[in-house]
Amino acid sequence: MLKSFRFTDGFLARQARLVCDTVVPYQEKVINDEVGDCAPSHAVANFKNAAYLNKNGVMAENGEFYGQVFQDSDVAKWIEAAAYSLQIKPDVCLEKRLDELCDVIADAQEEDGYLQTYFTLKRPTEKFKNLLEAHELYCSGHMMEAAVALYDVTGNDKLLRIMQKNADMLYQRFVTEGAEGYPGHPEIELALMRLWRATGDERYKELAEHFINVRGVDAEFYDRESEKRNWKIWSGKTGDLKYRQAHLPVREQQDAVGHAVRAVYLYTAMADIAAVTKEEKLTEACFRLFDSIVKRQMHITGGIGSSRIGEAFSVDYDLPNDTAYCETCASIALVFFASKMLKLKRSGSFADVMERAIFNTVPAGMELDGKKFFYVNPLEAIPGVSNVAPVYIHARPVRPGWFGCACCPPNAARLFASSANYIWDTEDGVLYSNIFAAGELALDNVCISVKTDYPFGDTVTYTVKEGSARLGIHIPEFTLQNFSISAKGELADGYYYVDARAGDVITLKLDMSPRINRTSIKVASNSGKAAITVGPLVLCAEGADNDGEVFGFTLDGEAELLLEKKTPAEIGGFGNAANDLGKVYTVLADGYELVSCDPEALYFNEYREEKRRIRLIPYFMWANRGLNQMRVWIPVK
Amino acid sequence: MLKSFRFTDGFLARQARLVCDTVVPYQEKVINDEVGDCAPSHAVANFKNAAYLNKNGVMAENGEFYGQVFQDSDVAKWIEAAAYSLQIKPDVCLEKRLDELCDVIADAQEEDGYLQTYFTLKRPTEKFKNLLEAHELYCSGHMMEAAVALYDVTGNDKLLRIMQKNADMLYQRFVTEGAEGYPGHPEIELALMRLWRATGDERYKELAEHFINVRGVDAEFYDRESEKRNWKIWSGKTGDLKYRQAHLPVREQQDAVGHAVRAVYLYTAMADIAAVTKEEKLTEACFRLFDSIVKRQMHITGGIGSSRIGEAFSVDYDLPNDTAYCETCASIALVFFASKMLKLKRSGSFADVMERAIFNTVPAGMELDGKKFFYVNPLEAIPGVSNVAPVYIHARPVRPGWFGCACCPPNAARLFASSANYIWDTEDGVLYSNIFAAGELALDNVCISVKTDYPFGDTVTYTVKEGSARLGIHIPEFTLQNFSISAKGELADGYYYVDARAGDVITLKLDMSPRINRTSIKVASNSGKAAITVGPLVLCAEGADNDGEVFGFTLDGEAELLLEKKTPAEIGGFGNAANDLGKVYTVLADGYELVSCDPEALYFNEYREEKRRIRLIPYFMWANRGLNQMRVWIPVK
Repeated sequence: MLKSFRFTDGFLARQARLVCDTVVPYQEKVINDEVGDCAPSHAVANFKNAAYLNKNGVMAENGEFYGQVFQDSDVAKWIEAAAYSLQIKPDVCLEKRLDELCDVIADAQEEDGYLQTYFTLKRPTEKFKNLLEAHELYCSGHMMEAAVALYDVTGNDKLLRIMQKNADMLYQRFVTEGAEGYPGHPEIELALMRLWRATGDERYKELAEHFINVRGVDAEFYDRESEKRNWKIWSGKTGDLKYRQAHLPVREQQDAVGHAVRAVYLYTAMADIAAVTKEEKLTEACFRLFDSIVKRQMHITGGIGSSRIGEAFSVDYDLPNDTAYCETCASIALVFFASKMLKLKRSGSFADVMERAIFNTVPAGMELDGKKFFYVNPLEAIPGVSNVAPVYIHARPVRPGWFGCACCPPNAARLFASSANYIWDTEDGVLYSNIFAAGELALDNVCISVKTDYPFGDTVTYTVKEGSARLGIHIPEFTLQNFSISAKGELADGYYYVDARAGDVITLKLDMSPRINRTSIKVASNSGKAAITVGPLVLCAEGADNDGEVFGFTLDGEAELLLEKKTPAEIGGFGNAANDLGKVYTVLADGYELVSCDPEALYFNEYREEKRRIRLIPYFMWANRGLNQMRVWIPVK
Repeated sequence: MLKSFRFTDGFLARQARLVCDTVVPYQEKVINDEVGDCAPSHAVANFKNAAYLNKNGVMAENGEFYGQVFQDSDVAKWIEAAAYSLQIKPDVCLEKRLDELCDVIADAQEEDGYLQTYFTLKRPTEKFKNLLEAHELYCSGHMMEAAVALYDVTGNDKLLRIMQKNADMLYQRFVTEGAEGYPGHPEIELALMRLWRATGDERYKELAEHFINVRGVDAEFYDRESEKRNWKIWSGKTGDLKYRQAHLPVREQQDAVGHAVRAVYLYTAMADIAAVTKEEKLTEACFRLFDSIVKRQMHITGGIGSSRIGEAFSVDYDLPNDTAYCETCASIALVFFASKMLKLKRSGSFADVMERAIFNTVPAGMELDGKKFFYVNPLEAIPGVSNVAPVYIHARPVRPGWFGCACCPPNAARLFASSANYIWDTEDGVLYSNIFAAGELALDNVCISVKTDYPFGDTVTYTVKEGSARLGIHIPEFTLQNFSISAKGELADGYYYVDARAGDVITLKLDMSPRINRTSIKVASNSGKAAITVGPLVLCAEGADNDGEVFGFTLDGEAELLLEKKTPAEIGGFGNAANDLGKVYTVLADGYELVSCDPEALYFNEYREEKRRIRLIPYFMWANRGLNQMRVWIPVK
């Protein structure tokens, strides 16, 4: 966690504040079963019951495990988000409650360091016998991330010590004793790298590398494991090895495949390790897999994993809009992956991908009031079809509340609460500004103040208050051909390098004019269509702004796009919770409405095209005004 | 069967000939397990084994039942197609083999008239205990249709007597004794109406009406039935009652829902009964359900049942192109339904729907050589995605051979072999020409010769050779605003009525100019797109004619479409089997190709549009030249 950055204002500050004020408190209630209108979570209760069992040797009354096998990770993700929130909004009561929760977790941990309440409470003799499905390493990973976050922000090392004990046990088992196997759901690999950095204990990096190295090498491991036990969690069978990226050794994997979140968590760890080890084959695999995603399998919104079957990557150039899956968590993982790729190569293209996700799919995953969430982020919503017809049943056009499988809400919370980590980074003595955000940065060598309305403004001003630094300022791809900067420096691969010292005021002017984007002709679903972007923001047309109807509209590709800045209240229909967004970009676009001479006809030959103007709003703001049509890709003529 | 019509030439004659020369002989081999390269059918063997068991009281060696529970219907559908083929192409050897097969079926029938080899061989004590799944009434229905066809064409009444005995048993059971229940897969209702017409036995009509009347009235029937037995064929559970149109009494059903073939077979019987009984509520339901299909759920190709989940109707205006299911059998059923609707109201709109299916989806279901078949008829094929990505796994871009569940090939065969029934019909003293086809018609009162190249020509000439008749000539919707006819008459609801007598030559000129079709703006998947039609033919753009690439093309909506007539050889790439199509319509269309300045970019802002001309061919000819792109709906500017 970059502790030395404080937001002043702007979009990412607003999202972080929303997490602190609304999401973290709400999720705390959820995991403690204090919310009446959603399914019981029991996530904290599971820890309490495991602690009781460990202490007393007998189960507590009504002390059974409840929930998914990975229910513990809800607590972990909440702790991680809550820890980051303390950085944004200090709260001594929350800090105290976190500390108390750490005590519960300490008691829930078994003598040898084992920690997963599902097995402690439900299958105490079956540990590590179902790496395929049981998410033990996944839950450990998330709790390690929580531990590192809590330690980084507050200095409280209780959870860190718990997870070191856990990691020590895992190292003993998988490295020292050579137990076979690797996690069905990658996650612990990236977490172990964080634990390594937080503690300096090389064994954790070694264990991360171990899981990376053995993955997919022994293709029959899961089958063998399955044959040895007589129980299962879901199917118990290996199924498609690609689903969990176990089809090939990771260094030989060619395409991003399978369950998107699993895949990109894995690739994130691979990139992190490659940046440390400088190993060529692993580095090449990371570049190959990153390209596989962003050059052939990524929606313009930064949504990835287009197939609802398996929440997975589909095949190259299959990017449907109405049936897209695009799990919020997958785009969050993409931010992680891109941020690690920056450590392999300082190229603006990686920061561009972070922006694409952070300003589009990830915030779209959350209602503007922070109370409802999307798992699935389609690029087209068709009332009456989306979430109704079986093929579209996953594609909800309005956000429901907390899910039974609650992975996305806390994941979005931790991303926004920790966005400073993506806004800034340092490497080889250069201070990198990856994403523009207003705030104050104080490092040992330099203090900088940044003013900007980005992504709703075209100016960024860096004022060096104290000290000096070599700055690397990411110039986003959309403005690379057209920007001005008041300081002398050099542009290299999407970063503008400036040597700045106290008193310097560097003003950057961006090209935020609306742009018409087209898609490769290999993508059948977007042929003849255009999407409009303003800076990093993808826009969409929603029925709420357009008399309820957007599917009859064809954009005039020659007409000027009219950029406006409006508050949500001026756009209309948004609740009060959206007011703190301030003025956002919207676009008025001219085009034509198809009008049939027979309005009831399904097919017709006689029609006229009437001039029409429609309003487009940022994609992340969609579905905040009830059920209505939405589309990102619009036919163009 | 309209025995008195003989094709001379033209498209439908060609399809009928193909059925006689290729499909019927091939399918005969399949059901007799004489084809090496496809899964064993065992369909005739099942009858032989049941016959052996009935005669000897013990199972024959290796005499087990093999195949789907409805395997018998493969034999039935083949007999029906073969019977029709004898009308097109007399064949005394085939007639003899059919007669011998009837003897086997007679022996396979049980004493009381029961006939389904699955139960006779496999579950002799479980008859009629699983109307939900067991397809007993479905198989009876298909065999009744076969019996009527064989009797109509050849006068051989062996199978007719077998199926009368079967129907008598069913009447006894369901009407006389009041056994509860109705078929999980409607089919027998329309078959019983045919059996009634062939035999004059009123009980068969009564039984058809009975099944119609009880359907969906007792919503819990299938659940009760399920509880009473301890076996199942698939899930054994009722599931979604809409899937089998049992959610409401048929007269109260509002929308076409569920499995499309089941639905439309049911609606066909309803329309047939309504035309006889003149019952208002049933008639209204038929009109409502027909409109539900053709006004809100039908692809322009006549494909229906757009959802692969359940091979089913989806919801209104959900008409995807790339993931469309559009089972061949469903469009065949639509021809049946529309032909019965003509008996409820003589409106050209019903004949238009028959044409839409007969000239587009139904022939597309069959390779031009008659040897391979599509179940699923998408309107867009994307090599590398179609039949590859899980969401598109059903949407094959090239036809495979015979299927394990072989419903579509024999269904297409019987439709084409009996197309005379749809080309002509008579009612209330009027002789109706519904579909233009070259041939000779000889009725008691009139002999007429028709010359035309339709659908590949714009002229139809009716020459009255003998006698006289009041002719009702269907003027297709596409030419209704622009046609000429040499005889004085009256146009009413899509039919042109002429009193014709010996010596009259009536020449009809149609408007076969290419037309640009648009779709209701309620259909999101077609917005901004146009489909080109010539007469009843929907055209498509295939990669084979367009340098392998059609998805980058945008049609110039203002440019003239150039109509050409070409043989398949002139178009190029078709095998010799296509030569007998003669000259077909193709269209050259002008437009633009999207060219990115960066050909590798997934998304881009810099591009140009280059003038390009593409060739379109009739949709029914697609996928005859290997794997390549195909699209019906093309972006238009």
